[in-house]
Amino acid sequence: MQAEKFMSKKNESALIVNEGVKQPPTVNPYIQNFYKNKGSVLTPKEYLKGIFAGDRSMLGRAITLIESNKPEHRIIAKEIIKACQEKIQKSKIRTMRIGITGVPGAGKSTFIEAFGGLVTSGGHKLAVLAIDPSSEKTGGSILGDKTRMETLTKDPKAFIRPSPSAGSLGGVSRKTRESVILCEAAGYDVVFIETVGVGQSETAVHSMSDFFLLLMLSGAGDDLQGIKRGIMEMSDLIAITKADGSNIEKAMGAKAQYASALHLFPPADSGWTPTAVTSSAVTKEGLPEIWEIINNYFKLVQKNGYYDYKRRQQSKYWMYETINETLKSEFYDNPKLEKAIQKTERQVLAGQVDSFMAAEGLIELFQKER
Amino acid sequence: MQAEKFMSKKNESALIVNEGVKQPPTVNPYIQNFYKNKGSVLTPKEYLKGIFAGDRSMLGRAITLIESNKPEHRIIAKEIIKACQEKIQKSKIRTMRIGITGVPGAGKSTFIEAFGGLVTSGGHKLAVLAIDPSSEKTGGSILGDKTRMETLTKDPKAFIRPSPSAGSLGGVSRKTRESVILCEAAGYDVVFIETVGVGQSETAVHSMSDFFLLLMLSGAGDDLQGIKRGIMEMSDLIAITKADGSNIEKAMGAKAQYASALHLFPPADSGWTPTAVTSSAVTKEGLPEIWEIINNYFKLVQKNGYYDYKRRQQSKYWMYETINETLKSEFYDNPKLEKAIQKTERQVLAGQVDSFMAAEGLIELFQKER
Repeated sequence: MQAEKFMSKKNESALIVNEGVKQPPTVNPYIQNFYKNKGSVLTPKEYLKGIFAGDRSMLGRAITLIESNKPEHRIIAKEIIKACQEKIQKSKIRTMRIGITGVPGAGKSTFIEAFGGLVTSGGHKLAVLAIDPSSEKTGGSILGDKTRMETLTKDPKAFIRPSPSAGSLGGVSRKTRESVILCEAAGYDVVFIETVGVGQSETAVHSMSDFFLLLMLSGAGDDLQGIKRGIMEMSDLIAITKADGSNIEKAMGAKAQYASALHLFPPADSGWTPTAVTSSAVTKEGLPEIWEIINNYFKLVQKNGYYDYKRRQQSKYWMYETINETLKSEFYDNPKLEKAIQKTERQVLAGQVDSFMAAEGLIELFQKER
Repeated sequence: MQAEKFMSKKNESALIVNEGVKQPPTVNPYIQNFYKNKGSVLTPKEYLKGIFAGDRSMLGRAITLIESNKPEHRIIAKEIIKACQEKIQKSKIRTMRIGITGVPGAGKSTFIEAFGGLVTSGGHKLAVLAIDPSSEKTGGSILGDKTRMETLTKDPKAFIRPSPSAGSLGGVSRKTRESVILCEAAGYDVVFIETVGVGQSETAVHSMSDFFLLLMLSGAGDDLQGIKRGIMEMSDLIAITKADGSNIEKAMGAKAQYASALHLFPPADSGWTPTAVTSSAVTKEGLPEIWEIINNYFKLVQKNGYYDYKRRQQSKYWMYETINETLKSEFYDNPKLEKAIQKTERQVLAGQVDSFMAAEGLIELFQKER
């Protein structure tokens, strides 16, 4: 009967949670009923058992729950994340989160396929995740096109996850960051977080990575069109890709140019000096060097304390970022304000109203309509 | 009697405004009374008459009103801003807003003094404003130290305004941006907006300038400590200062290095190619070149439409920025949440709670306590 109620009134799920069904106190009665009626969704314990045992399919199913926007899935996802967070906290394993971005055409997938193989052959377990807030517009994520990572997909030490379906950057970032926690709890000690979209996603990836790798092509002119200003300055390493065949000389020239440009940037808080290298996914040249550089970075920041400091600051950042996004959504997603916001924006764009007075007017309306 | 009421119950000013005192409908009865009792505060009309006539002291007094946080001052300030906005809108004068920042020791004040003199000698009226959110901590703004701009202070074509007293970046930015509008309405067609503080203020200045000038020293190593990452990429021109005497050669070398580095950045939306020059406030060498480059920039962006586009986008940016700041302040300045926020932040920093779950918990509390 309780089950029937749920089936017919999905939107009242929040109320049902609070109904006092007699159950052992630690078990949420709503979830209990939910399991009974949804064969495909397991209990948090079942997911966790699979994740901790390194079961890739169970890890994938748990990430699917994280990616779901349904409140009933969110309840289970939260329990899983909490337990994974606790496991990581206890295990003291210092994982490597490597953010990877690059100009269009730099061959990100091919690079990740080749470089990932090097990482797993060294005994590491590698998870590859992506942030792609714009996949609907750009026509699908590169990682979704699994055929381009054939070898890595079959590698038993690798876990590749296509980017979550398109959504707001805030939502997609949350899902990716929570997926990282699950992967790490499943024993993946190296995580690649790739930006597939353009625009703000680089900053999102940077704010959840320990190390930021930028892939560039040898031509320094038009090729740069696809990369946002400011990305170069947040990079820990620039790798010029496709340094093979007749392209080697050009790539070496680009490497020297970028190395000299990086030298002009203000020093990074990490104490690390960013550098530039060349690499080829075809000849595999440069790949061991990149892995060595990354390992040197981790040795440095674990020794000087920056590794822990940055992780803590990132956690804090995401807490406040999530709060701020929620506060904004209360305002901007309020249907009563929609027309007024549009009208005021038009007035501001036409120079008829000053920005600050426009804002004051809308806030007054918001406080009245709330 | 009305006046007495105001004098004794300052905090009820909002209520008093709404009381129906018999007055011509266009005159706010509260303001009317306010004028009677505050000899030093004039009517908006009086301020505007002075501003439009180019009366520097009246402009200064109006900016003081803008800088005031008192609600009664804000009411008058709003009327002044609105009228100035309308005047600018009608006049169609295309002013030049030039953001200036630099590494500590680059000699910003000395540069502005020398370069400002060049601008006014060319027939322009120049206003110099500053953003300094941290002046309380850094021990006063450079512009406050007027003795360092002796010539420019006495220049009848220049208006120099020390930065508003310390406050949040949002507040200080609003005050500066509104002051720019008043200066432009007073006929100042060139406005320098200087960053005095460190950190986020460069971004604030950048978001209210047409052109962004970065002052650098010849040594590219330790001198960069004071400049934030990402600033170089938002610059339209890098000027190596103090290129005189025995320093000339070093400055020329730095210029070449920066010019080559700028070349590697992605192209700017403006269609402009940033460049690097050397300059000296002592010999005045390089200053006419900088002014020519700036004029070339304005010719380009006024022709290709980027000037208007950027101004409109900036107005929109500040509208949303102000809304977002207000929304945040409702949350973070709520005394009932203060302890919970601190406690949760500690838990997140200790890795005990996941960022996203911490945020959800605080938002729930906020919605209950509001």
